[in-house]
Amino acid sequence: MKVAEFTLKSFAESGNCYKVALMLELCGADWQPEKVDFFDGETRSDEFRADNVMGEAPILTHHKEDGSLSLTQSGVILTYLSRHFDRFGPADEMDGYEVLRWILFDNHKLTGYTGTARFLRVLMNKPDDPATQFLHGRALNAYKVLEAHLAGRDWVVGDAPTIADLSLCGYLFWPEHMGVDWADYPNIQRWLANIQALDGWKRPEELMPAALKN
Amino acid sequence: MKVAEFTLKSFAESGNCYKVALMLELCGADWQPEKVDFFDGETRSDEFRADNVMGEAPILTHHKEDGSLSLTQSGVILTYLSRHFDRFGPADEMDGYEVLRWILFDNHKLTGYTGTARFLRVLMNKPDDPATQFLHGRALNAYKVLEAHLAGRDWVVGDAPTIADLSLCGYLFWPEHMGVDWADYPNIQRWLANIQALDGWKRPEELMPAALKN
Repeated sequence: MKVAEFTLKSFAESGNCYKVALMLELCGADWQPEKVDFFDGETRSDEFRADNVMGEAPILTHHKEDGSLSLTQSGVILTYLSRHFDRFGPADEMDGYEVLRWILFDNHKLTGYTGTARFLRVLMNKPDDPATQFLHGRALNAYKVLEAHLAGRDWVVGDAPTIADLSLCGYLFWPEHMGVDWADYPNIQRWLANIQALDGWKRPEELMPAALKN
Repeated sequence: MKVAEFTLKSFAESGNCYKVALMLELCGADWQPEKVDFFDGETRSDEFRADNVMGEAPILTHHKEDGSLSLTQSGVILTYLSRHFDRFGPADEMDGYEVLRWILFDNHKLTGYTGTARFLRVLMNKPDDPATQFLHGRALNAYKVLEAHLAGRDWVVGDAPTIADLSLCGYLFWPEHMGVDWADYPNIQRWLANIQALDGWKRPEELMPAALKN
Protein backbone atom coordinates (compact mmCIF):
# COMPACT_ATOMS: atom_id res chain seq x y z
CA MET A 1 0.00 0.00 0.00
CA LYS A 2 1.34 3.40 -0.91
CA VAL A 3 2.03 5.60 2.09
CA ALA A 4 0.66 9.12 1.84
CA GLU A 5 3.20 11.95 1.54
CA PHE A 6 2.24 13.17 5.02
CA THR A 7 1.07 11.09 7.98
CA LEU A 8 -0.31 12.72 11.12
CA LYS A 9 -0.35 10.96 14.48
CA SER A 10 -3.53 12.47 15.85
CA PHE A 11 -7.01 11.95 17.27
CA ALA A 12 -10.29 13.73 16.62
CA GLU A 13 -10.84 15.02 20.16
CA SER A 14 -7.65 17.11 20.05
CA GLY A 15 -7.91 20.69 18.88
CA ASN A 16 -4.12 20.82 18.58
CA CYS A 17 -4.28 17.91 16.12
CA TYR A 18 -7.17 19.59 14.30
CA LYS A 19 -5.10 22.72 13.62
CA VAL A 20 -2.69 20.64 11.53
CA ALA A 21 -5.28 18.31 9.98
CA LEU A 22 -7.26 21.33 8.78
CA MET A 23 -4.12 22.92 7.34
CA LEU A 24 -3.26 19.74 5.43
CA GLU A 25 -6.80 19.48 4.08
CA LEU A 26 -7.01 23.15 3.06
CA CYS A 27 -3.66 22.83 1.26
CA GLY A 28 -4.89 19.77 -0.66
CA ALA A 29 -2.05 17.67 0.79
CA ASP A 30 -1.74 13.93 0.20
CA TRP A 31 -2.08 12.93 3.84
CA GLN A 32 -3.61 10.42 6.21
CA PRO A 33 -4.15 10.35 9.98
CA GLU A 34 -2.77 7.65 12.27
CA LYS A 35 -4.83 7.29 15.42
CA VAL A 36 -3.18 8.04 18.75
CA ASP A 37 -4.84 6.13 21.60
CA PHE A 38 -4.69 9.13 23.90
CA PHE A 39 -7.23 7.82 26.40
CA ASP A 40 -5.33 4.55 26.73
CA GLY A 41 -2.23 6.53 27.70
CA GLU A 42 -0.34 6.14 24.41
CA THR A 43 1.24 9.62 24.64
CA ARG A 44 2.62 8.74 28.08
CA SER A 45 4.30 5.53 26.87
CA ASP A 46 8.06 5.16 26.53
CA GLU A 47 7.63 4.34 22.85
CA PHE A 48 5.70 7.53 22.13
CA ARG A 49 8.10 9.64 24.24
CA ALA A 50 10.99 8.28 22.18
CA ASP A 51 9.33 10.02 19.18
CA ASN A 52 8.33 13.12 21.15
CA VAL A 53 9.81 13.74 24.59
CA MET A 54 6.98 16.23 25.20
CA GLY A 55 4.49 13.34 25.10
CA GLU A 56 2.08 15.23 22.88
CA ALA A 57 0.14 14.76 19.67
CA PRO A 58 0.18 15.74 16.85
CA ILE A 59 3.32 14.37 15.23
CA LEU A 60 3.63 15.05 11.50
CA THR A 61 5.88 12.88 9.35
CA HIS A 62 6.78 14.12 5.89
CA HIS A 63 7.77 11.05 3.87
CA LYS A 64 10.34 12.28 1.37
CA GLU A 65 12.54 10.41 -1.10
CA ASP A 66 15.67 11.79 0.55
CA GLY A 67 14.56 10.74 4.04
CA SER A 68 11.61 11.27 6.32
CA LEU A 69 11.20 14.24 8.60
CA SER A 70 9.10 14.30 11.79
CA LEU A 71 7.91 17.45 13.52
CA THR A 72 5.92 18.15 16.67
CA GLN A 73 4.14 21.19 18.18
CA SER A 74 1.24 22.41 16.05
CA GLY A 75 2.82 25.88 15.69
CA VAL A 76 6.01 24.37 14.28
CA ILE A 77 4.12 22.08 11.90
CA LEU A 78 1.89 24.91 10.67
CA THR A 79 4.99 27.04 10.00
CA TYR A 80 6.68 24.19 8.10
CA LEU A 81 3.58 23.46 6.00
CA SER A 82 2.96 27.13 5.20
CA ARG A 83 6.45 27.30 3.71
CA HIS A 84 6.19 23.93 1.95
CA PHE A 85 2.86 24.74 0.27
CA ASP A 86 3.34 28.51 0.15
CA ARG A 87 -0.13 28.83 1.68
CA PHE A 88 -1.45 30.64 4.77
CA GLY A 89 1.91 32.22 5.51
CA PRO A 90 2.52 35.86 6.44
CA ALA A 91 2.73 38.47 3.67
CA ASP A 92 6.07 39.88 4.86
CA GLU A 93 8.54 39.87 7.75
CA MET A 94 6.52 42.15 10.02
CA ASP A 95 3.38 40.10 9.41
CA GLY A 96 5.52 37.09 10.27
CA TYR A 97 6.11 38.53 13.74
CA GLU A 98 2.39 39.22 14.06
CA VAL A 99 1.50 35.66 13.06
CA LEU A 100 3.97 34.32 15.62
CA ARG A 101 2.58 36.68 18.24
CA TRP A 102 -0.92 35.23 17.88
CA ILE A 103 0.30 31.64 17.71
CA LEU A 104 2.13 32.24 21.01
CA PHE A 105 -0.92 33.87 22.59
CA ASP A 106 -2.95 30.92 21.38
CA ASN A 107 -0.58 28.36 22.89
CA HIS A 108 -0.12 30.24 26.16
CA LYS A 109 -3.65 31.42 26.81
CA LEU A 110 -6.39 30.74 24.29
CA THR A 111 -5.75 27.08 23.50
CA GLY A 112 -3.71 26.69 26.69
CA TYR A 113 -6.61 27.42 29.02
CA THR A 114 -9.40 26.23 26.70
CA GLY A 115 -7.91 22.81 26.03
CA THR A 116 -7.22 22.10 29.67
CA ALA A 117 -10.60 23.40 30.88
CA ARG A 118 -12.37 21.29 28.23
CA PHE A 119 -10.34 18.23 29.19
CA LEU A 120 -11.44 18.58 32.82
CA ARG A 121 -15.01 19.61 32.02
CA VAL A 122 -15.95 17.19 29.26
CA LEU A 123 -13.42 14.38 29.13
CA MET A 124 -12.86 14.00 32.90
CA ASN A 125 -16.46 15.03 33.69
CA LYS A 126 -15.40 17.55 36.35
CA PRO A 127 -17.32 20.69 35.34
CA ASP A 128 -17.60 21.99 38.91
CA ASP A 129 -14.00 21.38 39.96
CA PRO A 130 -12.33 24.60 41.19
CA ALA A 131 -9.46 24.05 38.75
CA THR A 132 -11.95 23.73 35.87
CA GLN A 133 -13.66 26.94 36.96
CA PHE A 134 -10.36 28.80 37.26
CA LEU A 135 -9.19 27.69 33.81
CA HIS A 136 -12.61 28.50 32.33
CA GLY A 137 -12.36 32.05 33.64
CA ARG A 138 -8.92 32.44 32.12
CA ALA A 139 -10.20 31.07 28.80
CA LEU A 140 -13.04 33.63 28.80
CA ASN A 141 -10.43 36.38 29.24
CA ALA A 142 -8.61 35.05 26.18
CA TYR A 143 -11.85 35.10 24.13
CA LYS A 144 -12.37 38.74 25.14
CA VAL A 145 -8.91 39.60 23.84
CA LEU A 146 -9.59 37.86 20.54
CA GLU A 147 -13.04 39.47 20.29
CA ALA A 148 -11.51 42.94 20.75
CA HIS A 149 -8.78 42.26 18.21
CA LEU A 150 -11.23 41.02 15.55
CA ALA A 151 -13.32 44.23 15.59
CA GLY A 152 -13.33 45.40 11.98
CA ARG A 153 -11.14 42.49 10.85
CA ASP A 154 -11.92 39.44 8.73
CA TRP A 155 -8.72 37.64 9.74
CA VAL A 156 -6.34 37.76 12.68
CA VAL A 157 -3.35 39.08 10.69
CA GLY A 158 -3.57 41.14 7.51
CA ASP A 159 -6.23 40.70 4.85
CA ALA A 160 -6.12 36.95 4.33
CA PRO A 161 -6.29 33.76 6.37
CA THR A 162 -3.01 32.63 7.90
CA ILE A 163 -1.78 29.87 10.15
CA ALA A 164 -2.58 32.22 13.07
CA ASP A 165 -6.29 31.78 12.28
CA LEU A 166 -5.88 28.02 11.93
CA SER A 167 -4.09 27.83 15.28
CA LEU A 168 -6.55 29.98 17.21
CA CYS A 169 -9.66 28.18 15.89
CA GLY A 170 -8.40 24.74 16.96
CA TYR A 171 -10.85 24.24 19.84
CA LEU A 172 -13.47 26.84 18.95
CA PHE A 173 -15.81 24.73 16.83
CA TRP A 174 -16.84 22.96 20.07
CA PRO A 175 -18.49 25.91 21.92
CA GLU A 176 -20.78 23.52 23.80
CA HIS A 177 -17.69 21.87 25.33
CA MET A 178 -16.47 25.22 26.66
CA GLY A 179 -19.79 26.49 27.93
CA VAL A 180 -19.76 29.48 25.60
CA ASP A 181 -22.17 30.77 22.97
CA TRP A 182 -20.38 32.60 20.19
CA ALA A 183 -23.47 34.79 19.74
CA ASP A 184 -22.05 36.59 22.81
CA TYR A 185 -18.83 37.20 20.85
CA PRO A 186 -20.07 38.48 17.47
CA ASN A 187 -16.62 39.17 16.03
CA ILE A 188 -15.43 35.67 16.87
CA GLN A 189 -18.66 34.24 15.45
CA ARG A 190 -18.18 36.12 12.16
CA TRP A 191 -14.50 35.11 11.96
CA LEU A 192 -15.29 31.43 12.61
CA ALA A 193 -17.84 31.62 9.76
CA ASN A 194 -15.07 33.00 7.53
CA ILE A 195 -12.94 29.98 8.38
CA GLN A 196 -15.82 27.56 7.80
CA ALA A 197 -16.33 29.14 4.37
CA LEU A 198 -12.78 28.30 3.25
CA ASP A 199 -12.73 25.83 0.36
CA GLY A 200 -12.24 22.36 1.84
CA TRP A 201 -13.09 23.17 5.48
CA LYS A 202 -14.15 20.17 7.54
CA ARG A 203 -14.88 19.47 11.19
CA PRO A 204 -12.31 17.64 13.36
CA GLU A 205 -14.43 14.47 13.41
CA GLU A 206 -14.40 14.32 9.61
CA LEU A 207 -10.61 14.50 9.42
CA MET A 208 -9.31 12.22 12.17
CA PRO A 209 -10.34 9.03 13.99
CA ALA A 210 -11.86 9.35 17.45
CA ALA A 211 -9.78 8.08 20.38
CA LEU A 212 -12.69 7.93 22.83
CA LYS A 213 -14.62 4.68 22.87
CA ASN A 214 -18.37 5.21 22.93
CA MET B 1 17.97 63.09 28.27
CA LYS B 2 18.97 60.61 25.63
CA VAL B 3 16.53 57.72 25.20
CA ALA B 4 18.12 54.29 25.07
CA GLU B 5 17.92 52.43 21.75
CA PHE B 6 15.56 49.88 23.34
CA THR B 7 13.00 50.45 26.08
CA LEU B 8 11.24 47.56 27.78
CA LYS B 9 7.91 47.97 29.57
CA SER B 10 8.42 45.38 32.28
CA PHE B 11 8.55 44.56 35.99
CA ALA B 12 10.92 42.43 38.00
CA GLU B 13 8.37 39.88 39.22
CA SER B 14 7.57 38.76 35.66
CA GLY B 15 9.51 35.86 34.24
CA ASN B 16 8.20 36.71 30.79
CA CYS B 17 9.74 40.17 31.11
CA TYR B 18 12.95 38.61 32.43
CA LYS B 19 13.38 36.49 29.29
CA VAL B 20 13.70 39.67 27.21
CA ALA B 21 15.63 41.74 29.77
CA LEU B 22 18.22 38.95 30.05
CA MET B 23 18.50 38.73 26.25
CA LEU B 24 19.06 42.50 25.97
CA GLU B 25 21.70 42.38 28.70
CA LEU B 26 23.53 39.36 27.25
CA CYS B 27 23.58 41.06 23.82
CA GLY B 28 25.07 44.23 25.34
CA ALA B 29 22.12 46.28 24.07
CA ASP B 30 21.66 49.96 24.91
CA TRP B 31 18.39 49.49 26.81
CA GLN B 32 16.40 50.60 29.81
CA PRO B 33 13.34 49.22 31.59
CA GLU B 34 10.12 51.20 32.11
CA LYS B 35 8.17 49.95 35.10
CA VAL B 36 4.72 48.48 34.51
CA ASP B 37 2.50 48.84 37.59
CA PHE B 38 1.11 45.36 37.19
CA PHE B 39 -0.27 45.09 40.71
CA ASP B 40 -2.13 48.39 40.31
CA GLY B 41 -3.86 46.97 37.23
CA GLU B 42 -1.88 48.89 34.61
CA THR B 43 -1.97 46.02 32.09
CA ARG B 44 -5.77 45.93 32.34
CA SER B 45 -6.15 49.66 31.60
CA ASP B 46 -7.55 50.97 28.31
CA GLU B 47 -4.34 52.90 27.73
CA PHE B 48 -2.17 49.80 28.06
CA ARG B 49 -4.56 47.70 25.93
CA ALA B 50 -4.29 50.31 23.18
CA ASP B 51 -0.59 49.41 23.03
CA ASN B 52 -1.17 45.67 23.47
CA VAL B 53 -4.68 44.24 23.13
CA MET B 54 -3.42 41.13 24.94
CA GLY B 55 -2.93 43.22 28.10
CA GLU B 56 0.49 41.71 28.77
CA ALA B 57 4.02 42.81 29.55
CA PRO B 58 6.68 42.91 28.24
CA ILE B 59 6.44 45.45 25.41
CA LEU B 60 9.72 46.20 23.65
CA THR B 61 10.16 49.44 21.73
CA HIS B 62 13.07 49.74 19.33
CA HIS B 63 13.72 53.47 18.86
CA LYS B 64 15.08 53.82 15.34
CA GLU B 65 15.86 56.90 13.24
CA ASP B 66 13.38 55.80 10.60
CA GLY B 67 10.58 55.28 13.12
CA SER B 68 9.98 53.30 16.28
CA LEU B 69 8.84 49.71 16.35
CA SER B 70 6.97 48.06 19.22
CA LEU B 71 6.68 44.31 19.74
CA THR B 72 4.93 42.11 22.31
CA GLN B 73 5.08 38.41 23.30
CA SER B 74 8.46 37.38 24.67
CA GLY B 75 8.89 34.72 21.96
CA VAL B 76 8.41 37.32 19.22
CA ILE B 77 10.78 39.79 20.87
CA LEU B 78 13.46 37.13 21.42
CA THR B 79 13.20 36.15 17.74
CA TYR B 80 13.48 39.80 16.62
CA LEU B 81 16.47 40.49 18.88
CA SER B 82 18.28 37.29 17.86
CA ARG B 83 18.13 38.45 14.24
CA HIS B 84 19.00 42.07 15.06
CA PHE B 85 22.08 41.17 17.12
CA ASP B 86 22.84 37.88 15.34
CA ARG B 87 23.07 36.28 18.78
CA PHE B 88 21.36 33.25 20.35
CA GLY B 89 19.61 32.34 17.09
CA PRO B 90 19.38 28.83 15.61
CA ALA B 91 22.31 27.48 13.57
CA ASP B 92 20.15 26.53 10.57
CA GLU B 93 16.57 26.10 9.37
CA MET B 94 15.97 22.77 11.11
CA ASP B 95 17.38 24.12 14.38
CA GLY B 96 15.02 27.05 13.86
CA TYR B 97 12.06 24.67 14.00
CA GLU B 98 13.54 23.07 17.12
CA VAL B 99 13.98 26.47 18.82
CA LEU B 100 10.38 27.35 17.98
CA ARG B 101 9.23 23.96 19.26
CA TRP B 102 10.73 24.60 22.69
CA ILE B 103 9.52 28.20 22.83
CA LEU B 104 5.99 26.93 22.13
CA PHE B 105 6.30 24.19 24.76
CA ASP B 106 7.54 26.83 27.17
CA ASN B 107 4.62 29.17 26.49
CA HIS B 108 2.00 26.43 26.53
CA LYS B 109 3.20 24.32 29.42
CA LEU B 110 6.43 25.19 31.23
CA THR B 111 6.02 28.94 31.68
CA GLY B 112 2.26 28.65 31.09
CA TYR B 113 1.64 26.49 34.17
CA THR B 114 4.59 27.75 36.23
CA GLY B 115 3.77 31.43 35.91
CA THR B 116 0.11 30.97 36.79
CA ALA B 117 0.81 28.58 39.69
CA ARG B 118 3.40 31.01 41.09
CA PHE B 119 0.99 33.93 40.70
CA LEU B 120 -1.63 32.09 42.77
CA ARG B 121 0.84 30.62 45.26
CA VAL B 122 3.11 33.56 46.00
CA LEU B 123 1.50 36.75 44.75
CA MET B 124 -2.13 35.90 45.64
CA ASN B 125 -1.03 33.85 48.71
CA LYS B 126 -3.23 30.88 47.78
CA PRO B 127 -0.82 27.95 48.02
CA ASP B 128 -3.53 25.44 49.01
CA ASP B 129 -6.11 26.48 46.42
CA PRO B 130 -7.17 23.49 44.25
CA ALA B 131 -6.39 25.50 41.12
CA THR B 132 -2.88 26.23 42.44
CA GLN B 133 -2.37 22.53 43.17
CA PHE B 134 -3.63 21.49 39.72
CA LEU B 135 -1.36 23.99 37.93
CA HIS B 136 1.57 22.99 40.14
CA GLY B 137 1.13 19.36 39.12
CA ARG B 138 1.09 20.32 35.46
CA ALA B 139 4.22 22.43 35.95
CA LEU B 140 6.01 19.45 37.53
CA ASN B 141 5.14 17.41 34.43
CA ALA B 142 6.73 20.10 32.27
CA TYR B 143 9.92 20.03 34.40
CA LYS B 144 10.08 16.25 33.93
CA VAL B 145 9.94 16.72 30.16
CA LEU B 146 12.72 19.31 30.24
CA GLU B 147 14.78 17.14 32.61
CA ALA B 148 14.52 14.17 30.22
CA HIS B 149 15.41 16.32 27.21
CA LEU B 150 18.50 17.80 28.90
CA ALA B 151 20.09 14.39 29.59
CA GLY B 152 23.52 14.60 28.00
CA ARG B 153 22.91 18.13 26.72
CA ASP B 154 24.40 21.46 27.75
CA TRP B 155 21.74 23.48 25.92
CA VAL B 156 18.17 22.89 24.79
CA VAL B 157 18.92 23.09 21.04
CA GLY B 158 22.26 22.24 19.43
CA ASP B 159 25.63 22.97 21.02
CA ALA B 160 25.19 26.60 22.06
CA PRO B 161 22.75 28.73 24.03
CA THR B 162 19.74 29.98 22.06
CA ILE B 163 16.61 31.99 22.71
CA ALA B 164 14.95 28.64 23.58
CA ASP B 165 17.13 28.48 26.71
CA LEU B 166 16.40 32.11 27.56
CA SER B 167 12.66 31.52 27.18
CA LEU B 168 12.52 28.32 29.22
CA CYS B 169 14.58 29.71 32.12
CA GLY B 170 12.32 32.74 32.60
CA TYR B 171 10.75 31.63 35.90
CA LEU B 172 13.25 28.98 36.96
CA PHE B 173 15.63 31.09 39.04
CA TRP B 174 12.83 31.32 41.65
CA PRO B 175 12.59 27.63 42.67
CA GLU B 176 11.40 28.60 46.17
CA HIS B 177 8.35 30.28 44.55
CA MET B 178 7.42 27.07 42.75
CA GLY B 179 8.01 24.71 45.62
CA VAL B 180 10.72 22.80 43.77
CA ASP B 181 14.34 22.01 44.54
CA TRP B 182 16.44 21.74 41.40
CA ALA B 183 18.64 19.20 43.17
CA ASP B 184 15.78 16.80 42.34
CA TYR B 185 16.25 17.66 38.65
CA PRO B 186 20.02 17.40 38.15
CA ASN B 187 19.95 18.07 34.40
CA ILE B 188 17.92 21.24 34.88
CA GLN B 189 20.21 22.29 37.73
CA ARG B 190 23.31 21.84 35.55
CA TRP B 191 21.68 23.67 32.61
CA LEU B 192 20.61 26.61 34.82
CA ALA B 193 24.24 26.84 36.02
CA ASN B 194 25.32 27.01 32.36
CA ILE B 195 22.97 29.95 31.83
CA GLN B 196 24.17 31.69 35.01
CA ALA B 197 27.75 31.34 33.75
CA LEU B 198 27.01 33.31 30.56
CA ASP B 199 28.93 36.57 30.41
CA GLY B 200 26.64 39.33 31.69
CA TRP B 201 24.02 37.11 33.38
CA LYS B 202 21.98 38.88 36.05
CA ARG B 203 18.95 38.05 38.18
CA PRO B 204 15.53 39.56 37.30
CA GLU B 205 15.67 41.93 40.28
CA GLU B 206 18.96 43.39 39.02
CA LEU B 207 17.53 44.17 35.57
CA MET B 208 14.06 45.58 36.18
CA PRO B 209 12.19 47.61 38.81
CA ALA B 210 9.87 45.75 41.18
CA ALA B 211 6.14 46.37 40.81
CA LEU B 212 5.21 44.98 44.24
CA LYS B 213 5.26 47.50 47.06
CA ASN B 214 6.91 46.19 50.19
